[in-house]
Amino acid sequence: MAKLIDGKQIASEIRAELREQIVLWKAQGHRAPQLTAILIGDDPASATYVSNKMKAAEDVGINSKTERYSTDITEEELINRIEELNADDEVDGILVQLPVPDHINERKVCNTVSCDKDVDGFNERNVGRLCLDMNTLIPCTPLGVQELIKRAEIETFGKNAVVVGRSKNVGMPIAMLLHADGRNDTCAMDATVTICHRFTPPEELKRFCRLADIIVTATGVPGLITADMVKEGAAVIDVGITRVNDPATGKTKLVGDVDFENVRKVAGNITPVPGGVGPMTVAMLMKNTVIAAKNLAGKRKEH
Amino acid sequence: MAKLIDGKQIASEIRAELREQIVLWKAQGHRAPQLTAILIGDDPASATYVSNKMKAAEDVGINSKTERYSTDITEEELINRIEELNADDEVDGILVQLPVPDHINERKVCNTVSCDKDVDGFNERNVGRLCLDMNTLIPCTPLGVQELIKRAEIETFGKNAVVVGRSKNVGMPIAMLLHADGRNDTCAMDATVTICHRFTPPEELKRFCRLADIIVTATGVPGLITADMVKEGAAVIDVGITRVNDPATGKTKLVGDVDFENVRKVAGNITPVPGGVGPMTVAMLMKNTVIAAKNLAGKRKEH
Repeated sequence: MAKLIDGKQIASEIRAELREQIVLWKAQGHRAPQLTAILIGDDPASATYVSNKMKAAEDVGINSKTERYSTDITEEELINRIEELNADDEVDGILVQLPVPDHINERKVCNTVSCDKDVDGFNERNVGRLCLDMNTLIPCTPLGVQELIKRAEIETFGKNAVVVGRSKNVGMPIAMLLHADGRNDTCAMDATVTICHRFTPPEELKRFCRLADIIVTATGVPGLITADMVKEGAAVIDVGITRVNDPATGKTKLVGDVDFENVRKVAGNITPVPGGVGPMTVAMLMKNTVIAAKNLAGKRKEH
Repeated sequence: MAKLIDGKQIASEIRAELREQIVLWKAQGHRAPQLTAILIGDDPASATYVSNKMKAAEDVGINSKTERYSTDITEEELINRIEELNADDEVDGILVQLPVPDHINERKVCNTVSCDKDVDGFNERNVGRLCLDMNTLIPCTPLGVQELIKRAEIETFGKNAVVVGRSKNVGMPIAMLLHADGRNDTCAMDATVTICHRFTPPEELKRFCRLADIIVTATGVPGLITADMVKEGAAVIDVGITRVNDPATGKTKLVGDVDFENVRKVAGNITPVPGGVGPMTVAMLMKNTVIAAKNLAGKRKEH
């Protein structure tokens, strides 16, 4: 039976570590790190996400603020507001909750957020830096997956890893982190990485998964990864989160990409859904905000 | 016996196409595209590379200029000169021949070249855009590999591809292009991609290569890819170029990563070394310069 990777527990440890770091940081005479979220429109899911992030911020000692705008905000107004936040020395992290309304260019918005305050890691310069194995702010979910792998002490060096899903915010950065070269700036993981996606034929997906010591799946296809696809003892990290109807209770529940009950009998380590990668994403946002605050304080001191 | 992918012939076709495009472009009242190379120091290999690029430019009708500096140029002087070239409306492409001397930060130099004139595709913003499947200037060797695959009509959709070598200028961008998503901006290749590197155990490298419909190798390890590692009918693209001593003649010769004579008996398509990927790199630099010139003319017109 696989060892459970308890993302909730690990996220809570990380938040405790950050809380301590922030106490120390303030004791050195600095103000608390600060995070501003921009939330546009009335989508309840987006509002919940932002509210959870702000609660987590408060919990670790980050000052946070949510700016709400109606969907008729123009692209120019949004860009101008981000530029003001970029210039504001009291702000360390800027998070624009996606998606933005259709009349606003999402890529332009992500690129407007100053690289130094880009706690989501979506600015294309930060993406470039990540892909070059340079120190930078890394998107929270990939960073959370990396942290889970490290804290669960799963060996990656020279191992086979499969990433299922090639999304630019999750699958692609995870593939980058997993094969990162120790001779560069970032955390060396040095795995052999296979990137599978919707056009990987099912029999090939199975073949690559069966060869893998580590499977990271991020597709949103419930039950995609079944027990016959997993090598005995492999680590299985499930980034998928899909809301489905539970016929047993008639209520909706959250499920991942992995057939958890059967795969856990084969795998060596496995993350549950919920309680696996999910809590790590928010913890990593807090970590990125602390990193941004410290880097910015260093830069301000230089001037 | 594998079909030979004649890079020299394909590069010459591309150069002919560019020559025609430039004639047409000038007939529309535009000046010829312009490429400026910066060459620092006396390294004969660097000088030869630059000279070959400038000859190719002349051949297709690109105006070119090489600026030579001694190794005692300061980082500041170099950065200032690049910024002048960025601002110069008569310049479309800027190429800083690497490596630069040790006292100059290579990453800073690459990032100083304006994204619009970055015909080598080394600015970290352009790297980010490439990794996000956005339209951008793509490094010449990866672009040359992509073009060889397209012109040799090698199917990539849903196929297994292995990239051997994870260098940031060659292996990484090739892996990105090979799994690029058709729903994004760039040329869809949609292969399942495995990235192997120095820490992939030899038996795993062999296993992944044997599963591959397409092998792209870029390691500089002569003879790394042997016939027993190649599936019958696979396409083998050899980016490696190493100068070795030929015991038969006593002279030096260029060899790739592939045991060409034996692999060609198994593969379906194969590139030779020399005469495979090599000539494509220079042709793609010309292509990037033409793209840059046209984009810049469009931008200047907007203002």
